[in-house]
Amino acid sequence: MSRVVCDMAMSVDGFVAGPNQSLRNPIGENAENRLHGWMFEDSEAHAEAIAAIVDAGAFIMGRNMFSPGRGEWDLDWKGWWGDEPPYHGPVFVLTHHAREPIPMEGGTTFHFVTDGIDAALALAREAAGERDVSIAGGASTVNQYLAAGHIDELRLHVTPVILGRGERLFDGVGDIDLEPAGPVTGDSRVTHTRYRVVR
Amino acid sequence: MSRVVCDMAMSVDGFVAGPNQSLRNPIGENAENRLHGWMFEDSEAHAEAIAAIVDAGAFIMGRNMFSPGRGEWDLDWKGWWGDEPPYHGPVFVLTHHAREPIPMEGGTTFHFVTDGIDAALALAREAAGERDVSIAGGASTVNQYLAAGHIDELRLHVTPVILGRGERLFDGVGDIDLEPAGPVTGDSRVTHTRYRVVR
Repeated sequence: MSRVVCDMAMSVDGFVAGPNQSLRNPIGENAENRLHGWMFEDSEAHAEAIAAIVDAGAFIMGRNMFSPGRGEWDLDWKGWWGDEPPYHGPVFVLTHHAREPIPMEGGTTFHFVTDGIDAALALAREAAGERDVSIAGGASTVNQYLAAGHIDELRLHVTPVILGRGERLFDGVGDIDLEPAGPVTGDSRVTHTRYRVVR
Repeated sequence: MSRVVCDMAMSVDGFVAGPNQSLRNPIGENAENRLHGWMFEDSEAHAEAIAAIVDAGAFIMGRNMFSPGRGEWDLDWKGWWGDEPPYHGPVFVLTHHAREPIPMEGGTTFHFVTDGIDAALALAREAAGERDVSIAGGASTVNQYLAAGHIDELRLHVTPVILGRGERLFDGVGDIDLEPAGPVTGDSRVTHTRYRVVR
């Protein structure tokens, strides 16, 4: 069966987005470059970690990661990632509002799942076959899957900043033992760590 | 002038102690071995990091790190560390309750400071001379010094566990930029990271 993995760029104090996320600040105020700058400005140095983030057979994300809107859908909105999103596979979006699938260029299709995290995971596992399922974010979605014991491998990309507020990873997930799943790598911009969840 | 450094063993989710610290569980419930096990069970592998923790000319700690008691002193209590504590120098304990200094074997003397963190830091700097001042803990004390902008170098020893609750490092310290102060080292038990606070 496929593994369930999760990559998150995180501040030293455990935030994966700043406060007040919006259309203008999708990662929240004063956070985007400090959490994700290494992906864009040093992408060659971190090519392996970046490739691993989208190397899954299917993806799951929360509504708030897919869209700045809330409530009923603005059907013109097709995600943050332009015509050809980097997923190149099925992406299951958790939402309370049904919507038809959106096929994009390059093999990404956004599917909208209204019956919860277990249903989304079952669909993603089926779509992924032998490949990994990736929980793409945001914090609330990852925390729900962690608390439910569904995540096998957690890859934290820790950047040298204390954000102080925002969306906190690990809120409410309880007490979980981890073990390293590989060596720590990185440079002055980011530290890549990989942990297996111990059951 | 001496630098102000701080070493903390921390869970992946930012806790430096578990909940309900007590005489029986000084680091809180279900936390001691998971945060500090590498110091005792793998001390040779981590000798350099361990030596750095007590390589300062003076130390500052909170009352709650020195003693499980609260309020007026139990004068029989001389800390958790036996007759010869590992500090081998002056340790300034922040407290609301005055007490005479306690000289211990091996050069450690516990001094009790009742007029706040700035007064304690001034005393520690004077005592340390050219050597570093170490903020030894716990979370509340470190957070106060971080929030006040007094810490120059933060060394986080991150262990592979999500504690879920307890004493949280970085609570209320605000938004702080860091930069790596050395390579990341460690093994499967702990990851040693060093950051300079950017001002």
